[in-house]
Amino acid sequence: MIHGGDLVSYEDYYHGKLVDFSSNINPLGYPRGLEEVLEAAFSSLLSYPDIKYRRLKSSVAGYLGCPEENLLLGNGSVELIDVFISRAARVVLFTPSFVEYEIRAKVHAKELVFLDYGEDFSLEIEGLGELLREGDLLVLGNPNNPTGLRIEEKLLLEIYRHVREKKALLLLDEAFYEFCPRDYDSLELFKEEDYRGLGILRAATKFFALPGLRLGYGVSSLDQVEKINKTLLPWNINSLAEAAGNHIFRDRTYIESSQAYIEAERSFLEENLARLRSIRVFPSQSNFILIKLHGMDEDRAFKFFLERGLLIRKCSNFRGLDRSYIRVAVKDRENNTRLLDVFRELEDLQRKSPV
Amino acid sequence: MIHGGDLVSYEDYYHGKLVDFSSNINPLGYPRGLEEVLEAAFSSLLSYPDIKYRRLKSSVAGYLGCPEENLLLGNGSVELIDVFISRAARVVLFTPSFVEYEIRAKVHAKELVFLDYGEDFSLEIEGLGELLREGDLLVLGNPNNPTGLRIEEKLLLEIYRHVREKKALLLLDEAFYEFCPRDYDSLELFKEEDYRGLGILRAATKFFALPGLRLGYGVSSLDQVEKINKTLLPWNINSLAEAAGNHIFRDRTYIESSQAYIEAERSFLEENLARLRSIRVFPSQSNFILIKLHGMDEDRAFKFFLERGLLIRKCSNFRGLDRSYIRVAVKDRENNTRLLDVFRELEDLQRKSPV
Repeated sequence: MIHGGDLVSYEDYYHGKLVDFSSNINPLGYPRGLEEVLEAAFSSLLSYPDIKYRRLKSSVAGYLGCPEENLLLGNGSVELIDVFISRAARVVLFTPSFVEYEIRAKVHAKELVFLDYGEDFSLEIEGLGELLREGDLLVLGNPNNPTGLRIEEKLLLEIYRHVREKKALLLLDEAFYEFCPRDYDSLELFKEEDYRGLGILRAATKFFALPGLRLGYGVSSLDQVEKINKTLLPWNINSLAEAAGNHIFRDRTYIESSQAYIEAERSFLEENLARLRSIRVFPSQSNFILIKLHGMDEDRAFKFFLERGLLIRKCSNFRGLDRSYIRVAVKDRENNTRLLDVFRELEDLQRKSPV
Repeated sequence: MIHGGDLVSYEDYYHGKLVDFSSNINPLGYPRGLEEVLEAAFSSLLSYPDIKYRRLKSSVAGYLGCPEENLLLGNGSVELIDVFISRAARVVLFTPSFVEYEIRAKVHAKELVFLDYGEDFSLEIEGLGELLREGDLLVLGNPNNPTGLRIEEKLLLEIYRHVREKKALLLLDEAFYEFCPRDYDSLELFKEEDYRGLGILRAATKFFALPGLRLGYGVSSLDQVEKINKTLLPWNINSLAEAAGNHIFRDRTYIESSQAYIEAERSFLEENLARLRSIRVFPSQSNFILIKLHGMDEDRAFKFFLERGLLIRKCSNFRGLDRSYIRVAVKDRENNTRLLDVFRELEDLQRKSPV
């Protein structure tokens, strides 16, 4: 499997409902009231969505605190990742990172440049300034998937300076933004720059627990937005996603309690996982955790969890990771406890019969 | 406006609900039971759609009567139009035709070749064989938008022969297929050829009255499908569109009664429009009618209809049509009667005060 969340492929392996730790979705589910909003919007299916998405843009821009004119809307943020990549001269990636960056670059026959994140995936940018060329697109997950690390503000400003100097473009994929510590907001940080040389992408997918909805959004400079809007497909957002996007961002209580919940559960998971000797846990600032297995490969772990009804993410198809890495989502307490139990069971088994 | 259906732009001009004759949607609405199906699918928003759309493909292939392996799914058929165009050497268009063919060709910086449909938009293909080159994509609406004419079977086979001889590709846009006389089915016609050198596109948009859903589909040869699937974005169909697509094709009664209804209403409209002297009506085999205005331009007609709560389609942004053409959809009897009344009112006014 290329991506997490592919439940259908594994349904037959486990007789019962699989718990999905392979995709990183807010375990509290989508905001309350959404179902009523969708029901009320059924009749909108009879018409085309507003080709300019006027109301939706106003809703998203209000939530993000950015000007509507700087906004881009996508059929999931992957459509926006794709359009930025399609316009790049070269695509510069730090590895490991979201596999679609490389896939889309290859679809558009773009030259790829790979850099290592560095020790413990900490993002070392030595040499980046010299490497970048005019027209390059540097893509960075913030926080990065699958490592979970957020770029420190000072470092981000330094990267941006390099990118601007070389007339390159920086694409920040912030699909997991709301799960992060809110020490800075890149949308605020670069607002006065009018997002020149930048694309910043976010989405309803992860935090608002709506991967099936396909609603991504982002900001860029006015001239980029104008050019990109000319290349995006008309009516790329479905009418029901349009209606949902007019609703979900209003629920401050949901947003704040989700953030607090994930923070507490991430700590709970990290602390308990850290006690295990058979794995190494990488600290995360998001709602997923990268884990290095000792003395076991991803396939064995995957099978072990699957047989117990848990779907985890194997990581060897992330460039830069070998078969000793897995990724798990932060879910609700009951399921997190279940995950920990299976890890402990696995460790016991390893102790009794080491490979 | 580039497209019909842009109600939002004109809502302020008319105080009341606008009747949309500018987009060509089945006036009977979507199939019964759909709302219950969508409600039952709300929880599917919490997961990614099946990345392989296994159940949806089985449903669509069953409806179309084609092998699943030949199927392509798009976020509206416009996504599939786009992907075929993106892979073409040159794009060959007969004009006038759906404006997105040219727009997408320009987005992908493709060389465009324009041919005239010929007298009364009848599709004259003299010289086509000599003109086509290897790698060309010939795009034909079947029936064609905005002219409403379906390609005769014999002519289609002749075109296909030219296309195959020159190793070009024929893209048949059959978004309005179900509204047509069912003298032949292109999917049957080219099944034994395994759809080699072909793309045939259809959609839930028009006939199933679901423009807001964004569900397009098509068939092509196995090798084309394999290549195209590698370039399509992951999860391009929203989960609710996926659920709808598992439901709507089953309702044979809806399908047959819609076809009979449109046929009767098209005749009613055509016969009554033909009595007017101030316009020329082009015979249609679809659910829309192209009209040439005598002594009046599209803007004046558009405004006249708009002031009476009817939105019609101006046609001058179709390459090959001047400002004397408009297009109207075939709707339900009440609205069709209203349309005829406004046409008569317009004719009376013209008679009293000719331009």
